[in-house]
Parts: sequence; structure tokens; C-alpha cells
Amino acid sequence: MNLFSRSVLGKRIFKNGMHKAVALQASSKSSNPAMQFPCLDKMEELSEQLRNKHGTCSSVDATSSPNNEPNYGKVRSGFKLYKSNQPLFLDYGGVLPKFQIAYETWGNLNKDASNAVLIHTGLSASSHAKSSPDNSQPGWWEQFIGPGNAMLDTNRFFVICTNVLGGCYGSTGPSSPDPADNLPYATRFPMLSVQDIIRGQQRLVKEQFCIEKLYASVGCSMGGMQSLAYAQQFPQAVEKVVTVSACARSHPSSIAMRHAQRQVLMADQHWKRGFYYPSDEEPNRILPHVGMKLAREIATVTYRSGPEWESRFGTERLNEDIPPVLCPDFLIETYLDHQGEKFSLEYDPNSFLYLSKTMDLFDLSQSHQDRSNRRRAEAQRALEKSDVEDKPPRLCDEPYEATKKRRTTTVEEAREDLRKGMEPIIGKELLVVGVKSDGLFPYWQQREIVDLLGGDKNIEHVELDESQSLFGHDTFLLDLEHVGGSIGRFLKNDF
Amino acid sequence: MNLFSRSVLGKRIFKNGMHKAVALQASSKSSNPAMQFPCLDKMEELSEQLRNKHGTCSSVDATSSPNNEPNYGKVRSGFKLYKSNQPLFLDYGGVLPKFQIAYETWGNLNKDASNAVLIHTGLSASSHAKSSPDNSQPGWWEQFIGPGNAMLDTNRFFVICTNVLGGCYGSTGPSSPDPADNLPYATRFPMLSVQDIIRGQQRLVKEQFCIEKLYASVGCSMGGMQSLAYAQQFPQAVEKVVTVSACARSHPSSIAMRHAQRQVLMADQHWKRGFYYPSDEEPNRILPHVGMKLAREIATVTYRSGPEWESRFGTERLNEDIPPVLCPDFLIETYLDHQGEKFSLEYDPNSFLYLSKTMDLFDLSQSHQDRSNRRRAEAQRALEKSDVEDKPPRLCDEPYEATKKRRTTTVEEAREDLRKGMEPIIGKELLVVGVKSDGLFPYWQQREIVDLLGGDKNIEHVELDESQSLFGHDTFLLDLEHVGGSIGRFLKNDF
Repeated sequence: MNLFSRSVLGKRIFKNGMHKAVALQASSKSSNPAMQFPCLDKMEELSEQLRNKHGTCSSVDATSSPNNEPNYGKVRSGFKLYKSNQPLFLDYGGVLPKFQIAYETWGNLNKDASNAVLIHTGLSASSHAKSSPDNSQPGWWEQFIGPGNAMLDTNRFFVICTNVLGGCYGSTGPSSPDPADNLPYATRFPMLSVQDIIRGQQRLVKEQFCIEKLYASVGCSMGGMQSLAYAQQFPQAVEKVVTVSACARSHPSSIAMRHAQRQVLMADQHWKRGFYYPSDEEPNRILPHVGMKLAREIATVTYRSGPEWESRFGTERLNEDIPPVLCPDFLIETYLDHQGEKFSLEYDPNSFLYLSKTMDLFDLSQSHQDRSNRRRAEAQRALEKSDVEDKPPRLCDEPYEATKKRRTTTVEEAREDLRKGMEPIIGKELLVVGVKSDGLFPYWQQREIVDLLGGDKNIEHVELDESQSLFGHDTFLLDLEHVGGSIGRFLKNDF
Repeated sequence: MNLFSRSVLGKRIFKNGMHKAVALQASSKSSNPAMQFPCLDKMEELSEQLRNKHGTCSSVDATSSPNNEPNYGKVRSGFKLYKSNQPLFLDYGGVLPKFQIAYETWGNLNKDASNAVLIHTGLSASSHAKSSPDNSQPGWWEQFIGPGNAMLDTNRFFVICTNVLGGCYGSTGPSSPDPADNLPYATRFPMLSVQDIIRGQQRLVKEQFCIEKLYASVGCSMGGMQSLAYAQQFPQAVEKVVTVSACARSHPSSIAMRHAQRQVLMADQHWKRGFYYPSDEEPNRILPHVGMKLAREIATVTYRSGPEWESRFGTERLNEDIPPVLCPDFLIETYLDHQGEKFSLEYDPNSFLYLSKTMDLFDLSQSHQDRSNRRRAEAQRALEKSDVEDKPPRLCDEPYEATKKRRTTTVEEAREDLRKGMEPIIGKELLVVGVKSDGLFPYWQQREIVDLLGGDKNIEHVELDESQSLFGHDTFLLDLEHVGGSIGRFLKNDF
């Protein structure tokens, strides 16, 4: 009965302690060969490399930065910094005592400062939307911006793009030093709302460039949340608004998918509740790169579409002649694995966690604004009175205890709340773009934006069907013709 | 600027080593309170409890079972065992030198053995579909089976349900001892196909009960794959076939979601490449319960539907008055968390990994069958010749290297291959049920089954729209009226 008396445990297996333990239990006799795990070998080797570099990796050069703060932004050179020493009070009651925003610009601001276009980015993008003399690397929207470009013509527009607050490409985020002790904020970073992010951007626009009114606010995905929030918060400070593959309020399905990403990342033993940045006491801490990779893989599932995968990968395996393995094996698996791996050392895991949650929390409802306004005012009063020592901690000790099992408002009440919150946007020139193959921000969410604004005649609604794009949520990064073209036509003017 | 000079690091934080390290880095001064992580505290406490119980948990009573094999099946009492000492040769070239299948029955087999209905289960179910004198606990299809029941009337039918091979509720699976050394197979377990599973069942049906022809083969989800495979492999041995929320071949989108679940589970430090079962050398090993919980959370995202969550949870948080946290916070998050937690100690993680992959691999194509037949024959020849010592290992050393980036067959070729493989099913009385709100096995996959069979007049196709069920893939567990009713009417006969 003993078909394989020779052990087929792989040659890598005796490399380190954990593998030895495995080998111990897997005796030399087995009815079938033991499975090999090259994907896990690779992750363990990477951890070891990172540890040997004293907790840093190529893109995270912690040792050379002050306060041991990892400097993800460093690898993205060529941006400028707007610094504010005035505190930013936040929608959930926190505060940034001071902050900075990384930004880049293309084109020139005209005399009356009327040709500025602010680009808001998605969760993981930097301010580098386009190459420039200061950074010749292609930007994430390289083909959509430039002199004479059909979408954003830099001969006519002054284009600004920022790294969002909470990010890790130069703007203040969880990897930045907390002014209170100069150590990284980590999970002492305050929770941000999308509205907080655009309030920071608005200071930059006004104080750095003396722009009273943007010609346009343009964003896709989380950026499309920002452009709507900009119009809601500063309706007088923006002429035209473009929102692509976004929504007026997050949906529980999207929250569920982002929840999974966050929990997976937080379960990485190297995450250490956010305090994974190397310090003098703990020089060998390493990034939770496995958790980050897995989180990105789950995210990637939501970025493209089933029909694209069917035509590209189908259900083919790398090699039909060998038995199936639990490491990446189907083509679709190797694609996800590669996407996760690419990202895992490129982005600060804490930034990912915070901004992912910020997206979940996005809600243009009136009640949401009212609560936010109250909390910001409280945070400001607290700072002025300086009596915070006596304030009870504002964190629930056991938020985990789920005593509330169902929603307490009806779907209709919540919708009316949302409609009311969006009233400031009514009358704005607004372009709403949706993509039928997008499962993360499904097309009905863009239709809902239009409906909630009462089908305003100033609204232009473009919906790309499956014959136009199978690229799902990622369409805005790829589709120059339909997305770029629609935006270009909408922004047409007589500068 | 120092708003919160009093540290608000939670009281649990000094409990163990890891927490101390966290506290070390989070100094006593911070601009905002540090976030708390009750969900992580809870997981760490559970790990400690499991360690103190010497690697076992309430449902995994390893110490009392022979060979230190955890006995998930033990808590599911009342089943019988079919044991085969004849090897089962497998589609991917492996072998089970001997095996057992746990099963339960309800009703009585009639004289000519013509009234047997075989129920095939989904991935995680046991043989306990219905309560019985031997086990009074409600079964997973409790309301769908019983004397006079509209779906499966046990006064008329002899109902059999098995735990699938690869499972952990009594049938041979990765937690079972490998006869070669009496240690748990772990990841030395051979990969199974759905066809392998039903071949095992067919031996039980024939050898244990002398049933030459089943009256019906009935299954949902992975069970619906099995009933189709049964009809394909043994068209003469089954009269009627019911397949609910299943497909003829897995889709890359479903593979992507299951891939994520597997990778997350395998990343758990306690998984140890499958060798987490406590042994004499390693008595303190514990289940990778965190990875299992996270995998189940991701799976749960695919089991229900967005509209259900919208009406049940919306975007409400547990408590709007406290700042958002990264632990479960939205109602939808607490739901997913609870679902994951419930499952995390109830199921063998290796069984989950293997059967998840088995679902990915499901494919009724002709080419798939041809390859499988060849490999099974090879495995058998190898056993007979006993020359396996000289065989090179059949595992690819580096399956990770993705050199093949795109599919090599066209969508049309693959469809024709599938159509051909399904020819043996043509002419069978077949009920195909699909659910419009199911995102995991979308309704077009059930329509495809019907189309591939040439729209055979013996096929009955039922499609539940959103007004009938918003329960998504889980509908088959819940919908007595539409699912149960349709099956009951289809099985009507004159016994």
C-alpha cells in the first residue's frame, strides 16, 4: 500500500526551524508525495531578506529618515510640499496638529486663477499623475494629461494632483511622526473622512495658489468620492465636477470586501497593531508584507471583471500535466499573486488600512454631516480649553460586542437623508461616469447619484456598457477613449 | 499641540509579550488616542486557550483518538461508516489505499431498491442532513426531508447522505491517518476531483446497499457539481438528477475568490504547511483558527447578496457616537466576523483547502475526462508494478513561475470541449435550479448547463428572481418554498 516510500519533501524544506518541524511530522513514508509550497518559501525568504536589511526594503528607506519614520514618499521624487502649522480638526473628533500635503502641478495658472483643475486620486495613487521634468517616470494617468491632450490639455489648464492625507507618498499619514513625541503615528493616527481629505486639499488650493474657485474637481473611485465631497463642502469654490466610478455612499457589499482586506492584513503577525516601523528598541521589525500582499489580492478581485478573466485566463492551469497544488496554479491565481506581490512593498500597510476604512465611511448624508460638524467643533473646543486630560477616552472599550443586529433606519429614510445632504451640489455642472462591468462601484450607484440630484439638467451621465469596457473598476486607468474623451468634452471651454 | 498626554492604550495591552512590545513603541504621549483592537485580543486569547488544551478545542478531540488524528467527525455522532479496503485511484494521479465514507440514511429501501435518493453536500456539510434517533440535532436540510415532506418524503424515499471524501466529518480526508505511517495525511493527502468523490459514493451505494440505480441524485452548490458528475460518470446508474446553484465548470471569478480564501488560510503561522495536527513531538500545535476564520469571512461575502445586506444592515455602524475603528464596526462587519468565528473551530482547515481546490478544478469537459482517465490508469499500473521508487516526483518544483500568461484555447473551443464532455447526461431527467441573486454561481452558469445539453426536453429549468430570493448562493439552505417545492414536484412518482 505504500506507494511512495521515498520522501518527496522538497529540497528547500530543511532551511529553517519551521521547515524542520514540518519535516519532522512528515515522515519518510507516505502513500502520495507531499505537496510543495514554493509560494510560501518565497514569502519566508522575503521576510528574511527584510529582516537582514534591518526592517527596511528597497522602497522603504527608514534608516535615512529622521525619527525612524519610513519614507515611502522618497521613492516618488519630484513632488512639492504644502505645509500647514494650523491644526486640522477632523470629522471623527481627531486632530492633525500640523500636516503636509505632497502635490505636483502641470501647466500654468492663468492671471485670474480660473483655469485650475484639481485631480483627486484613488486609494493607492501618489501625486504623480503625469511625468514632469522633476520626475520623468510615467504617471498613473500619463496618457490623460499633457500639452494638447484631449482630456486635460496643460496648454490650457493648470492641473494639480495631491497625495491624499492618510497616504504614504509625501502627505501626512500613519507613517508620519506624531508631533507629540516624534514617533510614527501608526494606529494613533486619527480616523479621516473623505471630507477631511478635501478640506486639506482646499487649504492648499487657497493658501498655496490663491485660487478662490477651481475650474474643475476631477476624480475616479475614491477620487470620485472626493470630487463630490468638494462640491458638497465648497459649492462656491468649484465650477465643474467630474466623478467617475464612485458613489454617494458606500454599499455594504463594498464594505464587506474591504473589511476582508483589512482583517487579513491585521492578522499578519508582523503588523503588530500598526507599530511595525523599526525603532531603536525594535530595529528588526519588518513590514507585514504577506498581509499587504493578500489584502491587495482580494482588492484586485474587485478591480477587474469576470468576463475579462474568462477571455484572458479561462480556467487554464499553468501546467495541466502536473497534479494541482495549493500555491498559485490556475492562470487567474498567478495573476492575482503577481498583483499582490508587486504592491506589497510599495505601500504603507497602515495607510491602506486607514484609507480603506475612509472609503467605507464615505456618506454624503445630512445626518452624517451634522454629526461631523459637531465632532469637529468639539475637537476644536477641547484644544482651546486644553482640558482633555479629564476627558474620558472616546474609544469604545468593546466595540466588538455586536448588540445591534439590524439597521435601525429604513432604506427610504436613509435615502432621503442622503438626498438632503447632497442639496449643495444641485445646480453644479456635473459629469457622472459609470461602467457596467464594475462590480465594486456598480453602475446603479452612479445612476443613484443622478437620481438623488433630481436628474438636474446640468448633469451629464455617461455609462459604459460591456462592449465599451470589460475592465471593471479599473476602466478609468485604461480607457482613454471613453473616460478620457467624456471628461475632455465636458471640460471644454474658452480659456 | 499635545492633545492627549495621557496614554489611552487599553487595559489589555500589558497582558503578553507582543502587547508589551506594542506599548513600548506607543509612548505615553500622542496627539490622538491610540486605537484599540478587541478583535485581535480575542483571537490571541483563543490561541492561548487552545495551547493550554494541548492543541485541541472542543470540537477537535485529538487526544482521545488513535494516531493523534483529530476527529472532527466525533462531534457529529450517529453516522455509519462504509469502509473500503480496495484502493481508490484518483483523477490527478494519487491514490487512497483504503478509505471510509460516513453516511446517514432516512426512510427504507424498497424491495427492488428503486427508491433511493442520494444527497450530495456542499463543501462544509456533514452527512447529517436531517435529525434521526441516532442524532437528534437538527440537520442542515432539516425542513426539507421527513415523513410526508413535500420535498423528500421519507415514507416514499430511501434517502442517503454522505460526508464527502476529503471532508472531516467521518470520511477519509487530510486529517485521517495515512496507512503508510499512520500519521495524519495533512498535505500528503492526494488532490481529489468531484468525480473522485462521486466514485467513492457510488461504491457505497452499490456495495453497501446493492443499489444498481439511484432514483435520484440531488445536490446544491458543490453537491450540484457532484450530481452532474454522477450523471456524467454513471448515466445508467441514476434515474433523475437535480442540480441547484451549481455549474458545469468553475469560472475564474469563483476561483479568484476561493484562491483568496486559501492563501489567507495558508498564511496563518499556525497552519505549518498543513502539519498543524498535534503529535507526540509537537503536542502544542494549534489549529490555524485565525486563518480559518478569515477564509470563512471571505467565503461568506460570496454566499449572500448585496441587496440582502442593504436591507438588513445598510451602512450603519454599531455605535455612531464613537470614532470608527479597524476592528468590526459596521453591522455588516460584525456579521462577517461572527460567521467566521462560528466556523473557525468547526471544520478542518486542510479539508477546507482541498475541497475548495476541488471545486475550482470542477470541469465536465471531454479533455478533462480524458486526462483523468489516463492518470487514474497510470496510478493503478504504478501500484501493480510497484516500481514507484524509480518514478520521478510528479510535482513541479517551481509551479510558481508563471510563464504562461494567457489562455491557450479559445472560449469557443473550451465550450465545445465542455459540450462534448456532457453528452452522457443528455436524455437524463434533469432539474436545474438557479438563483438570480447568487453571485458565486451566477444564474448564467445554470442557463449554460441547459444550453450545453442542447435545451433537452427532459430538462426542467427553474430560475428564482430577486422577488423570490435575495439570499444569494445560500438560497438552497433556506428556501423551502421555491427550492424545496421545485425539487419535490420534480421527484414526484408512484412508489
